Amino acid sequence: MELKVGSWSWAAGLPAVMLREKTAKKLGVHEKGRLLIRVPSTNKKEISAVLDVVKRKVSKKEIVVSEEVKKILGVKEGQKVEVEISSPPKSLDLIKKKLKGVVLTKKEVKEIISDIVNNSLSEAEVALFVSAMYQKGMNFDETVFLIDAILSTGNRLHFRNKFVVDKHSIGGIPGNRTTPLVVSICSAAGLTFPKSSSRAITSAAGTADVIETIANVEFSIKKLKKIIEKTNACMVWGGALGMVPADSKIISIEKQLKIDPEAQLLASILSKKLAAGSKYVLIDIPYGSSAKVSLAKGRRLKKKFEDLGKYFGLKMKVVLTDGSNPIGRGVGPILEMKDVIDVLDPSEDGPLDLEDKGAGIFLHVKRGDKIVKKQKILTIYAESKPRLKEALKFYKQNKPVDICHI
Amino acid sequence: MELKVGSWSWAAGLPAVMLREKTAKKLGVHEKGRLLIRVPSTNKKEISAVLDVVKRKVSKKEIVVSEEVKKILGVKEGQKVEVEISSPPKSLDLIKKKLKGVVLTKKEVKEIISDIVNNSLSEAEVALFVSAMYQKGMNFDETVFLIDAILSTGNRLHFRNKFVVDKHSIGGIPGNRTTPLVVSICSAAGLTFPKSSSRAITSAAGTADVIETIANVEFSIKKLKKIIEKTNACMVWGGALGMVPADSKIISIEKQLKIDPEAQLLASILSKKLAAGSKYVLIDIPYGSSAKVSLAKGRRLKKKFEDLGKYFGLKMKVVLTDGSNPIGRGVGPILEMKDVIDVLDPSEDGPLDLEDKGAGIFLHVKRGDKIVKKQKILTIYAESKPRLKEALKFYKQNKPVDICHI
Repeated sequence: MELKVGSWSWAAGLPAVMLREKTAKKLGVHEKGRLLIRVPSTNKKEISAVLDVVKRKVSKKEIVVSEEVKKILGVKEGQKVEVEISSPPKSLDLIKKKLKGVVLTKKEVKEIISDIVNNSLSEAEVALFVSAMYQKGMNFDETVFLIDAILSTGNRLHFRNKFVVDKHSIGGIPGNRTTPLVVSICSAAGLTFPKSSSRAITSAAGTADVIETIANVEFSIKKLKKIIEKTNACMVWGGALGMVPADSKIISIEKQLKIDPEAQLLASILSKKLAAGSKYVLIDIPYGSSAKVSLAKGRRLKKKFEDLGKYFGLKMKVVLTDGSNPIGRGVGPILEMKDVIDVLDPSEDGPLDLEDKGAGIFLHVKRGDKIVKKQKILTIYAESKPRLKEALKFYKQNKPVDICHI
Repeated sequence: MELKVGSWSWAAGLPAVMLREKTAKKLGVHEKGRLLIRVPSTNKKEISAVLDVVKRKVSKKEIVVSEEVKKILGVKEGQKVEVEISSPPKSLDLIKKKLKGVVLTKKEVKEIISDIVNNSLSEAEVALFVSAMYQKGMNFDETVFLIDAILSTGNRLHFRNKFVVDKHSIGGIPGNRTTPLVVSICSAAGLTFPKSSSRAITSAAGTADVIETIANVEFSIKKLKKIIEKTNACMVWGGALGMVPADSKIISIEKQLKIDPEAQLLASILSKKLAAGSKYVLIDIPYGSSAKVSLAKGRRLKKKFEDLGKYFGLKMKVVLTDGSNPIGRGVGPILEMKDVIDVLDPSEDGPLDLEDKGAGIFLHVKRGDKIVKKQKILTIYAESKPRLKEALKFYKQNKPVDICHI
């Protein structure tokens, strides 16, 4: 059936369309059914979308499409689209295979991820995939396939600078705001630091929420490249970039379900680092009673990160840090940003635990000294001041423990 | 925040609301976030709904609510409602408990089911519950709790007639249209037969789809009672009745996921029979390569049905029938209805396999004879003609094998 795109701006959060009740009946679809939308002129782009039914406001020959549909199909108000019933995706059978404990092949993982990106799978179906990964786990190969699939359905950044670095904290510790410290100092010293962060998932504030108290965090990839060219670094919300759309979609379901399968955690972090073009990556795994993982689980996770990092050619350091307490003086976007500024500002006394935690904060230069470009930076990820002192002593006597040699 | 209900008629398939982008930002909710809607005047009714965001068409002080919200809250266009961010439901933690293999208590099962009915759980969250039941199974007690919970959140019918009967085929066999035969003959003989059927789930046509080729199948409960008073029976689509809303919601997710956990299958069928006030129930389990279950699984299922039927005070017969082949001459709503009419019409030759399969078709009266009220009816559920002959022989020599003695 040919229909005309309506004049609305509708952010449904997923590819969705609205039809008048009679039009839906003619197509034989009920609300929450799935439709295939195609642009006749291009004859290649098509998308599967969920149907909402309205009685007024939409005419019989009209189809209202959500922003997501507009973006993917590149259609505008008044344009004509071809609409038909959508058949169920084959990848659902593959998800059920995983649910039964079968190990998936590269092709199978790719089909699931590509259907997630194409929105051929509904929220309930993606939830089943998350549940299957949570229940049955994924082995090393499957996790590699997952990362490859997520990367292949997204965009990748490339930088000329040899030293593209990144860091990631597993999260879950309130006030653990090391990113703004590490990014500021490393970029000042000439490293390229394309850092994207999440909004709050498990804590009161995600790094993106904290940064947003003083700066915009939502940019296009194009704008992002310009920012990094100018400043060496960025601190943005990964969700707005859409660089690894499969990951964003899976995360939005994980957020609803509040479960975080290990394979997806690994794939999510590594795909983002690889997509951002990072070569040197520091992973921080806080452990303890209030952290996401215990020390034993943290150690297992460390091994998995290291193996995957090696496979994908990353120079990676994984550190286990004490995550038994909140860090800093306050929890919540504004208070956490205040802590960050207090640490960075030499005229203020920052919270000691956050200073201790901030990798690269304790340099072999004093606080207040101007950091110059190309200056050597220690990347010790110290758990406490005494530990840092030990590490500095070790550094003087041995080979430096750092993420890259510049 | 107080907002005015907009003038739309919007069938979203679930409780959903639309806000203008600015209003959503003020509330601090993104699209697909959850809002709690309350009617200030009543101060008791409230509902959790999913948010869609629009840029135009909705004013800043307006909230567009889906038909489902209107129905549950009883609000009308122009009325004022109180809106705030909704906190995540506690039952999600219970679902995760089940996913970890913990046996749930009566109170816990009830909380999950009641949150499903209140729409406090999203589609992804209900999918996780389905996945948990599928993965971990549910024991006898949990299945009883599930049936009790589904019944307590719905409506129940009551009939004065002592002989309220029902039948159910597990389904999955194309053309297996026994319902219209059994219902017609049993009701003609004076039994009350409040039969509701599903639309297509696994096959080309559900019984409701087949009946719809010659009659309306969507009625309110009130209208249904009138129909049964007049004709002794009904053949309607269960989805439109909303008698066991928890079951309908779980089924809509199962349909998407194409998985059917055993506990939910048992609960779904039994809750519908109990809600309809049935006392005598025949369950048909087709087994075989193209059926939903193997003979071994069918036998286990039979035992479970019998145990649950006993617990709930039902007079129940469970039969295993050969489901290795499609039944009748055609598959699809119209062809299947034609088969039914050919069987029922004495001037036509109906398909023999369907005649064989139809419980109550082979009566001790000949085809073409007028069936009179209160007449005794054989309810042998025969797998094949030779088997039927054996059964008839057995019937003559022994006590009748029937669902009830009238």
